[in-house]
Amino acid sequence: MTFTEFDLIAAIQQGLPQSNDEQLLLGIGDDAAIVQPTVGEQLVISTDTMNAGVHFFPDDNAADIGHKLVAVNLSDLAAMAATPRWCLLNLSLPADWSASQRSNWLCALIDGLLPIMQQHAMTLIGGDTTSGTLSLTLTAIGSVPAGSAVTRAGAAAGDHILLSGHVGDAAAALHGLKHGAVVSAALLHRLRRPTPRLELGQALRGLASAMIDVSDGLLADLQHILQASAVGASVCVEDVPMSPVLAAAGMDNAEMQRCALSGGDDYELCCCVPDRHLAAALQAAQHCSIKLSCIGRIEAEPGLRCIDAAGEPIKLPQGGWQHFHD
Amino acid sequence: MTFTEFDLIAAIQQGLPQSNDEQLLLGIGDDAAIVQPTVGEQLVISTDTMNAGVHFFPDDNAADIGHKLVAVNLSDLAAMAATPRWCLLNLSLPADWSASQRSNWLCALIDGLLPIMQQHAMTLIGGDTTSGTLSLTLTAIGSVPAGSAVTRAGAAAGDHILLSGHVGDAAAALHGLKHGAVVSAALLHRLRRPTPRLELGQALRGLASAMIDVSDGLLADLQHILQASAVGASVCVEDVPMSPVLAAAGMDNAEMQRCALSGGDDYELCCCVPDRHLAAALQAAQHCSIKLSCIGRIEAEPGLRCIDAAGEPIKLPQGGWQHFHD
Repeated sequence: MTFTEFDLIAAIQQGLPQSNDEQLLLGIGDDAAIVQPTVGEQLVISTDTMNAGVHFFPDDNAADIGHKLVAVNLSDLAAMAATPRWCLLNLSLPADWSASQRSNWLCALIDGLLPIMQQHAMTLIGGDTTSGTLSLTLTAIGSVPAGSAVTRAGAAAGDHILLSGHVGDAAAALHGLKHGAVVSAALLHRLRRPTPRLELGQALRGLASAMIDVSDGLLADLQHILQASAVGASVCVEDVPMSPVLAAAGMDNAEMQRCALSGGDDYELCCCVPDRHLAAALQAAQHCSIKLSCIGRIEAEPGLRCIDAAGEPIKLPQGGWQHFHD
Repeated sequence: MTFTEFDLIAAIQQGLPQSNDEQLLLGIGDDAAIVQPTVGEQLVISTDTMNAGVHFFPDDNAADIGHKLVAVNLSDLAAMAATPRWCLLNLSLPADWSASQRSNWLCALIDGLLPIMQQHAMTLIGGDTTSGTLSLTLTAIGSVPAGSAVTRAGAAAGDHILLSGHVGDAAAALHGLKHGAVVSAALLHRLRRPTPRLELGQALRGLASAMIDVSDGLLADLQHILQASAVGASVCVEDVPMSPVLAAAGMDNAEMQRCALSGGDDYELCCCVPDRHLAAALQAAQHCSIKLSCIGRIEAEPGLRCIDAAGEPIKLPQGGWQHFHD
């Protein structure tokens, strides 16, 4: 029996808790969905596509793909300090897959999609399933109390630059996979099962002046904040937190630093916090059980400067600004 | 020079009139967009994917593809009686395209996207551009005054079944292309440049009890209304309007009927209207300069019956219920 678009929808709906969502007036199954935010609420909307051979290996576990598809979109909502609400799923499946191949793949996909959607109380409200090269697009809709979203544009000179968790793991895992190296399960998990920092993002409402998620690489993403906020920054490279699993990966220091500064796919939050909110921001992170490290300061002078612990400028290795995973 | 994601966005934004949209708080360029509907307004959300080799021929004009991508999504909004507002565009472009091929294709795409977006005052608020097999996904967001959306679920016994324009042209054009026949420009236009019936859809607020757009074929789509409304219907096959260009296509009667009843891609509206609103609905259509034809009645008895002008049941040709374009 072929697992159809309708089976997929039914399986996802069945797996999600009975929705008690008064703002969702019409869900999946009509020409469009209808939602009505409450008065004083704003909607935050993001979308990401993942293609076989580009964003994942064609033989990757579909459960990992499903998890990551939701995670990368939720990471964008986290970076806006939004609460996830609804999503739409566009799925292109190869026409030459056998019925059992298709069915197995969809079942695994659901195994990956459901837990993270459940965890964040998301409802699937629409989508499109069609034939094509394996490709997935998710559009995630979240909400914020009016005016409380954190954009990339509010950083001001003197703000602390804070980073959640640690960076470089995902890039190191991908680097290892591409070069046929043995990659530890812990590193692979960070690549395949990223954790969007939603609770932290929401906790930073009113505290962070600017925020972004680290998807393209720490320095590249911080540059987006600098550009949007028309400021510059100094980052103390030695303060950028690396994980014990990265340290155990057997890379030399330059490679590790490259992963941490320019690798992507970590989905940590990088935010700017004025001095007067620093203690509250650190406390909020502690409350979420997430490490939040000060890695630098926003400055009036444009440009991004990397410095060492003594404040001396350091030169990045060649290619350090390129996307590591491209 | 490579035409990048940023060039594409800039070109689309440049081509759209300066937005005076107070409900769009943050557009493209951050981790997510932010919108805030006015009090008493509901948002209507739909998404469709179009893949090369599935929804269009790989060498089709990118301007036609761009137009159709927007049109098919707006047709879903039209079927809900919604007014288009914002959209997100996900674009996968082959990595092996040369810079000039990529640039030419994107320029042509914009030529197709812009006019229809301008016509309906839509703003691009987000998206994702990445490498992959040529594929486009649009997510369209519209709005309706609270409670005025028309779903598939309100049809009641006695309602008239009305159809806008005429059906079968797009299927006849596709049939001709697939069989190497000469296809008239008028038929091709109907396939490649469908017109979403937005003005009519909005004019039918408060008049139509149920509505759907004809994308999969008239009878198949009407079935969706019957199922959602838990009713049946009789359709007088001879009342289903066919266009002069279809009549001039040189098909035999059975083929024409098959195109009209089971062909897809016409993007006309099929709606149900109670007797007391019939005159107003017909007048609304006249005001939009769109023909609205009575093609049957909703009945309490489940099932869809095709009848002739004398009310006698007629048997459809074999395969008449299959999607003509699959």
